[in-house]
Amino acid sequence: MSKVPQTDAEYRASTLYAKRHSVAHLLAHAVLEKFPDAKLGVGPPTRDGFYYDFALPRPLTPEDLAELQERVRALIRGGVHFERHELTADEAVTKFADQPLKLELIRDIVAGGVDDNGEPIEGPVELSVYESGDFEDLCRGPHIEDSSAIHPDAVALLRVSGAYWRGDEKRQQLQRIYGTVMDSPKELRHYLWQLEEAKKRDHRVIGEALDLFAFSPAVGKGLPLWLPNGTIVRDELETWAREVERAHGYQRIVTPHITKSDLYYISGHLPYYADDLYSPIDIDGEEYYLKPMNCPHHHMVYKARPRSYRELPLRLAEYGTVYRYERSGQLFGMMRVRGFSQNDAHIYCTREQAIDEFLAVMRLHALYYDKLGIEDYHMVLALRDPKNTEKYHGDELMWQEAERITRDAMERSGIPYIEDIGGAAHYGPKVDFILTSVTGREFAASTNQVDLYMPEQFGLTFTNRHGEAEQAVVLHRAPLGSHERFVAFLIEHFAGAFPVWLAPVQVRVVPISDRQADGAAAVWRRLVDAGIRAELDDSDNTMQAKIRRAEQQKVPYVAVIGDRELENDSVSVRARGRRNLGSRPVPELIEKLGRLIADRAMTLDLDPAG
Amino acid sequence: MSKVPQTDAEYRASTLYAKRHSVAHLLAHAVLEKFPDAKLGVGPPTRDGFYYDFALPRPLTPEDLAELQERVRALIRGGVHFERHELTADEAVTKFADQPLKLELIRDIVAGGVDDNGEPIEGPVELSVYESGDFEDLCRGPHIEDSSAIHPDAVALLRVSGAYWRGDEKRQQLQRIYGTVMDSPKELRHYLWQLEEAKKRDHRVIGEALDLFAFSPAVGKGLPLWLPNGTIVRDELETWAREVERAHGYQRIVTPHITKSDLYYISGHLPYYADDLYSPIDIDGEEYYLKPMNCPHHHMVYKARPRSYRELPLRLAEYGTVYRYERSGQLFGMMRVRGFSQNDAHIYCTREQAIDEFLAVMRLHALYYDKLGIEDYHMVLALRDPKNTEKYHGDELMWQEAERITRDAMERSGIPYIEDIGGAAHYGPKVDFILTSVTGREFAASTNQVDLYMPEQFGLTFTNRHGEAEQAVVLHRAPLGSHERFVAFLIEHFAGAFPVWLAPVQVRVVPISDRQADGAAAVWRRLVDAGIRAELDDSDNTMQAKIRRAEQQKVPYVAVIGDRELENDSVSVRARGRRNLGSRPVPELIEKLGRLIADRAMTLDLDPAG
Repeated sequence: MSKVPQTDAEYRASTLYAKRHSVAHLLAHAVLEKFPDAKLGVGPPTRDGFYYDFALPRPLTPEDLAELQERVRALIRGGVHFERHELTADEAVTKFADQPLKLELIRDIVAGGVDDNGEPIEGPVELSVYESGDFEDLCRGPHIEDSSAIHPDAVALLRVSGAYWRGDEKRQQLQRIYGTVMDSPKELRHYLWQLEEAKKRDHRVIGEALDLFAFSPAVGKGLPLWLPNGTIVRDELETWAREVERAHGYQRIVTPHITKSDLYYISGHLPYYADDLYSPIDIDGEEYYLKPMNCPHHHMVYKARPRSYRELPLRLAEYGTVYRYERSGQLFGMMRVRGFSQNDAHIYCTREQAIDEFLAVMRLHALYYDKLGIEDYHMVLALRDPKNTEKYHGDELMWQEAERITRDAMERSGIPYIEDIGGAAHYGPKVDFILTSVTGREFAASTNQVDLYMPEQFGLTFTNRHGEAEQAVVLHRAPLGSHERFVAFLIEHFAGAFPVWLAPVQVRVVPISDRQADGAAAVWRRLVDAGIRAELDDSDNTMQAKIRRAEQQKVPYVAVIGDRELENDSVSVRARGRRNLGSRPVPELIEKLGRLIADRAMTLDLDPAG
Repeated sequence: MSKVPQTDAEYRASTLYAKRHSVAHLLAHAVLEKFPDAKLGVGPPTRDGFYYDFALPRPLTPEDLAELQERVRALIRGGVHFERHELTADEAVTKFADQPLKLELIRDIVAGGVDDNGEPIEGPVELSVYESGDFEDLCRGPHIEDSSAIHPDAVALLRVSGAYWRGDEKRQQLQRIYGTVMDSPKELRHYLWQLEEAKKRDHRVIGEALDLFAFSPAVGKGLPLWLPNGTIVRDELETWAREVERAHGYQRIVTPHITKSDLYYISGHLPYYADDLYSPIDIDGEEYYLKPMNCPHHHMVYKARPRSYRELPLRLAEYGTVYRYERSGQLFGMMRVRGFSQNDAHIYCTREQAIDEFLAVMRLHALYYDKLGIEDYHMVLALRDPKNTEKYHGDELMWQEAERITRDAMERSGIPYIEDIGGAAHYGPKVDFILTSVTGREFAASTNQVDLYMPEQFGLTFTNRHGEAEQAVVLHRAPLGSHERFVAFLIEHFAGAFPVWLAPVQVRVVPISDRQADGAAAVWRRLVDAGIRAELDDSDNTMQAKIRRAEQQKVPYVAVIGDRELENDSVSVRARGRRNLGSRPVPELIEKLGRLIADRAMTLDLDPAG
């Protein structure tokens, strides 16, 4: 489990933020030196660095970027002091007379509403510049006092991309230079390694190389086709989830992918969240929608007959496929798609049972994450924005109760969390689980919620011990998120090198030469009959080429068969990563692989300790 | 495997058909005697009897029906001769002057196009009546010569229902009397037993009683919710299908439920079969449809990369959910729904491989049916209507080739079949598997097709041995049909008494009294931990009531626990149907149940022979 990351507010108050902001100024300084006619846009820090937008006479080259980085580092080494000056609007207009983009910002700041980075601001408007050496920039700060706080070798310029002025595609296109600053050169090196690693681990690249999934323009954007290899991975995950859920008292259900609009009017998704839904289908004059979530269907299963307290907690699970509208530009591989299958379940229980059930769900998360070796995760508690309560349904008392149950459970879980004011669902607070991959990328993996609103809307009651109708509490949970996003995460997490139980091909059988072809086929057949996903490589390639291909395809084991192996009814086993596991009798290999697979082990070691 | 049923043409030419037609006349005769003002509609034979429509002065009562049945039988016993007379239109109009419905039929027959039952006819129009005793009816025949051919006790009137004149809901409503005639009283008794049994085995009734599925008006018509018990049945079937398919070289894929209209224009479903599709969804200005079949998606998986002959046959399987428009009035429980999950797969192969692959699919059917004890089934080979070739896509040679492959495989399979001229899909001939349930009802369970058309449309090619692009053949197959229809069939087949591997609850644990409550709970826990779907009945009911309840719920085993059982670590086992299997040590029960379940056995016998 990871340390809790800084909240946005904490980050904005940090020295690192000020350092990045300051180096953005030094970059603008260096650009103006090199291109005196450069027009400056905005240059804010980001969560992992900064950028600055420029209008330049020509496109920047990689050489320009190296030169600018060197100049920025030289400025730091030379020593630069940052000094703040307040000024009037007239003074500002005069100072930035030849910087039209800055002038536009000044006008907007004076008119109110945006800051020097074009972000909305609240409170009184004030204009200020920061002076650093020969350079002055319109800026609210904060900055460091002196460049000596920055290690020059902890600064890097990363890349250039196009960006429309103020994000408006009808305005001028600028060149955006991305860079970063870390607290030490070592941290920078780690960050640069992560960037490189992220490219290598890109789930889209690995997904194609390993034949896991594909997109087809004829089918439509954001609608993945799971190929046989990818289907094995998702099926293994789903089988695991079913086993775990069964052991934890869940019951499976299956519900349709469309439903009458009535359900979404009851849930409050319509008319307020119609943008997330696809356009309706007309059936016999009634409106039907593709389901954007499984909840209302599950509620109808709950309501299929009267319920007694004896049945609670009732845990209804479905790996349900839902469809949500995403703008074309937001689609991203399997991470953001238009249709996805959720590890969904709804728990119907009494108020007294709610905290224990919520805690049990958190333990389920931990169980899954521990098994998969996911160590870096935290929770975000998404609450109402108290300044904007009209966007939420339900009354004050209900919200307080839901928050109390949620907080109670979170405190008891011991999992670190941060708060996100304003991130709640329209019907209640929610808890997001955020996984941080080895490349530093955050994945919002799953959402859990205590819901007191929908039970009221849908009339989800049960007969309590005293024979009275009582309202149930609903928990929404999906520890493994959606197949699409979770598999994308796992691809990045494992760099495509899945543990043997998840690997599409578990063993590649390779004869040393044609002479062992029949013997190798017989071994392959025995592995397959034992339920192991084995493949025989009977191509014309050399043994070395076959082993190399298996390694490229991240196959966990290669079983090499020569004359000696055939004589002994054994195979020479190599584990992924060129590890020689020696010669093993075939029955031993089958038995040990079977055990690793059944245990869903992370190791490829055939003789694990303990 | 059953005897092949008669084709419609064979049935129409049979004596039984003539008997039923003749008894319909005798019924009209009896009705006119009782209600001299009765107006007669049509009275055709049906596949399992006949009906006759009447306009009557009052609704018929069950007593009327009994009286009419007695009178019909008396007419038969008295001896009635059937005699045909041809007549002119004028003579007919005179003869039926006081029968306005018959007059309308005469007008239509003379105008051409329909027969005396309102069915379309071809060929020259002729008018005839059949005279039987004091009764004459407008009729083309054929009839029996004399009522002595009919055993009076093989005749029954069954029920009365409303029917619009000529099926038009804007016309007059008539009373329709249904009846039947069999070749012998014994066959009639069997038929009446089947009717009774069909009521008891009605999948809608059992489905509700056993909590298998539900429909919700808020979700929409024809869109089933699979409750936990029903989901167990479908999951067990699906797990079985996956195992079988894996062993037979299938690979699983998953594809989305919507797709751009492009795919259906390529497949030819649009614009010609738009009525089967739901109205389109608009996404970013493009038309998307709920998929009515999985084929085009599977073809896109095939096309996801270039294919070599080395990969063929490529068998892509998906238990895919599809949505097809059915008119509200056509919906029928789980038998006819608007969304259903098909045991679908597409086999991509060479022409040389096609027959073997087709035969392998037929063997798969036999494997499933044999295991489930389904003995009564046959195939229907659906061919083009040679008089109406324009409704089919593809050229003559292609159809001949597809028919040749299909016929070849059918002949070799040894499974009996009949032909259905005009029943082919628009892209090729198809083979339907028809199951006949114990109640005599026919279920069209699955469809198999050799398809040479879609490979051309979709450009489904592979690189052959000679390095050339060659067109693949596609087989469409779904041996277990859809979950919805197949489970409905199995409910009727088993009368809800599923074999133990399919039973939602496999064992009900029942303590004799409160004293054994803890001991019973411990046994229940051991069963559950062994993967057995056991339930503990710790209600306040008596032991007898608990056993009765388990019997009503068709639970395969009840494990009764008294003091003696607790002492011996045993349970007293009763199998469904009040069969006492004696006292069994708990470990023995677990081991033997585990074996029956793993074998997917049909017997409940814990010590099966062999």
